[in-house]
Amino acid sequence: MEQRSKGITELVLTYARSEPPRDVRGIMRLSVLDWAACGIAGAQGGGFAAWASTLDAAGPATRFDGRMGSVSEAALVNGTLSHALDFDDTHFAHIGHPSVAVVPAALAMAEMASASMATMVDAALVGAETSVAVGMWLGRGHYQVGYHQTATAGAFGATVAAGRILDLSDTQMRHALSLCSTMASGLKSQFGTMGKPLNAGLAARCGVEAARWAASGMTSVWDGLSGPLGFGETHLGAGELPVFAWRMGDVSHKFHACCHGLHASLEAVRGSDLSTARRIEVFTHPRWLTVCNQPAPDTGLGAKFSYKQVMAMAALGIDTGDIAQFTDDCAMRPDVITLRDRVHVSQDDTLSEMQARVVIDGEAHFHDLRTPLAYEARQERIREKACALVGARADDLWAAIEAEDLSRFAGLLKS
Amino acid sequence: MEQRSKGITELVLTYARSEPPRDVRGIMRLSVLDWAACGIAGAQGGGFAAWASTLDAAGPATRFDGRMGSVSEAALVNGTLSHALDFDDTHFAHIGHPSVAVVPAALAMAEMASASMATMVDAALVGAETSVAVGMWLGRGHYQVGYHQTATAGAFGATVAAGRILDLSDTQMRHALSLCSTMASGLKSQFGTMGKPLNAGLAARCGVEAARWAASGMTSVWDGLSGPLGFGETHLGAGELPVFAWRMGDVSHKFHACCHGLHASLEAVRGSDLSTARRIEVFTHPRWLTVCNQPAPDTGLGAKFSYKQVMAMAALGIDTGDIAQFTDDCAMRPDVITLRDRVHVSQDDTLSEMQARVVIDGEAHFHDLRTPLAYEARQERIREKACALVGARADDLWAAIEAEDLSRFAGLLKS
Repeated sequence: MEQRSKGITELVLTYARSEPPRDVRGIMRLSVLDWAACGIAGAQGGGFAAWASTLDAAGPATRFDGRMGSVSEAALVNGTLSHALDFDDTHFAHIGHPSVAVVPAALAMAEMASASMATMVDAALVGAETSVAVGMWLGRGHYQVGYHQTATAGAFGATVAAGRILDLSDTQMRHALSLCSTMASGLKSQFGTMGKPLNAGLAARCGVEAARWAASGMTSVWDGLSGPLGFGETHLGAGELPVFAWRMGDVSHKFHACCHGLHASLEAVRGSDLSTARRIEVFTHPRWLTVCNQPAPDTGLGAKFSYKQVMAMAALGIDTGDIAQFTDDCAMRPDVITLRDRVHVSQDDTLSEMQARVVIDGEAHFHDLRTPLAYEARQERIREKACALVGARADDLWAAIEAEDLSRFAGLLKS
Repeated sequence: MEQRSKGITELVLTYARSEPPRDVRGIMRLSVLDWAACGIAGAQGGGFAAWASTLDAAGPATRFDGRMGSVSEAALVNGTLSHALDFDDTHFAHIGHPSVAVVPAALAMAEMASASMATMVDAALVGAETSVAVGMWLGRGHYQVGYHQTATAGAFGATVAAGRILDLSDTQMRHALSLCSTMASGLKSQFGTMGKPLNAGLAARCGVEAARWAASGMTSVWDGLSGPLGFGETHLGAGELPVFAWRMGDVSHKFHACCHGLHASLEAVRGSDLSTARRIEVFTHPRWLTVCNQPAPDTGLGAKFSYKQVMAMAALGIDTGDIAQFTDDCAMRPDVITLRDRVHVSQDDTLSEMQARVVIDGEAHFHDLRTPLAYEARQERIREKACALVGARADDLWAAIEAEDLSRFAGLLKS
């Protein structure tokens, strides 16, 4: 007879030992490709090179900056660099970016343990499901008050990912989760600074360490996540328990190298010819008007937060999926500036944050980012995106994932 | 004209560049000795050896477990092992243990930078003052809700300690503090587990990393501690700003290897002959009756939480300052058990948590732990304590501190 009531920790333990469904595993493999491309490209700039060079412990794990390192430091560096461009996948229920926390943890641990690609992908997947479930359990209030769910919920996901590869017992996994509860951190006030990508790296490292330390015999409380004075209680979690379900099928991949608030409108006009349009009316959720409605950006960064700019780029056939296009020059091109005047942005309270309606010379186009993308279409677009980020290496990465060749995959990550 | 209002971050920056007064520096040197003895003894047991062996990055920093390691891992290991016995110093205004967070950070960084003992002690001291000030600023509510101030406030202290040795500019120190704000963690629910000492180690590592990363050029927000959605706001800090003052002169050192709630009563009877007493009445603050009033402990651990036990030990001349005396055998000695019956414990609402009154056959003895101890008396007792913990090595450690010989001191720490 089961005496103990089931809570979030028991749900997490269930994920940790579940066999993932084939279709969700397929999506996770795409997320692994997407993550790798973001990390390779993220290592090229952003000012993290000097920081990464302070992390110089030798070890078996591959790093995006070209070094081999300890599993802890590889998880930290790879989590950070893969989030540096803010171009990685998003799960809206999680309120966070699942892959940047769990994949670096699973990969480093798999390299240490000489585990297979299939083991790595499944570990990353149950980790991602954990982070989504913990993110839902912490709730919107946790995010609103200032915690960065990618990092906080993500650390628990990374712990499960790493712990599964180490084949932790349920008791060891409990200790790992409770050690995670006293280590997990990450504030939203870091947004717009190097601290935001760092938060993802810290979550990945936290998971690797909590799992390894529990495996070494370190113990903690029975339920540091949802027990008395646990992580949920201290970090203002709502504590509403989600049901067991596989949710990574709903993950969103970013196909435009700009603010997420612009994506629904760009998807709405995808395939339409805007080159001769005289009037382009964008209707969007009111929240986005304070986030990404710069009327006349004059830098590449500003361009990423401007409906007028990205619509003008789309009209000129400039690929908004290519991060290299978001330059100061592009923001100041005379033909772009001229076209921006044809774009008119309004709020529409009936739209969700994920929806947009774009009216081109009177003809309405609508998109909801929550609309599921068929696997084949998703694969094609992610491979295109990866190709735009890392060139021909994208095909080699995908071939290594399909061949389930972990060492070939890892070898391709070094910049 | 100063436009920006002064807050906790500006106070911390003031500590970071201040010259400590000579008398407070003297107390800090005693804390360094006390810390070293606790760490050497703490490395002998507690089940941390397997854990420490997973931390195997090579580097210039000395560790209590005998290895040389990276500065990050040395700070982590040394912070944890020095708190393993829970015998290290306490600051009641901080609501925490200052030395276990700041000294490991300062020492590892000093070894890396080949800094002098004087530089290390001053860095540890301004770090300790920072952790006390930040602890006061976070306030009692932060502790009550479940945060472990030793770890949370301690991380900011460790950041200042490490950053001072790296000679960070004010701007770099701000970035280090803001990086710390997104990394600092530590829950009180870990008490009674290996997670409690680990929290101290995490704080020490956090400081070392935040300082090194800021020195490498990593940047963050302007004020991650007290700015919008900063550490104070998200972690339920009260935000009452303390004045600039040197407070480490008030630090308490533990002279009995048992629960702090027993110390005032043991100090009250210090120097009295209890061997022939027929009735020993202990009066204490009501809170302690639920913490350390086990009537008949039968283990060494239980003995550490029992007025009857420690009074019986004192009556028999068994040194309560010697951690080795708190054994299962001692708890079950027939002469101890007989004497326990003569001890009667009552609450007295007029006493503070730091006070106790012990009436021996009608003769009252009072002690308040806040009573300042003269430097010479304090030095003598800390040296006695260190000697009980690590034998003759205590004298060598003190000689190295007095000679300001950092490398000799570090060499003596290895178990």
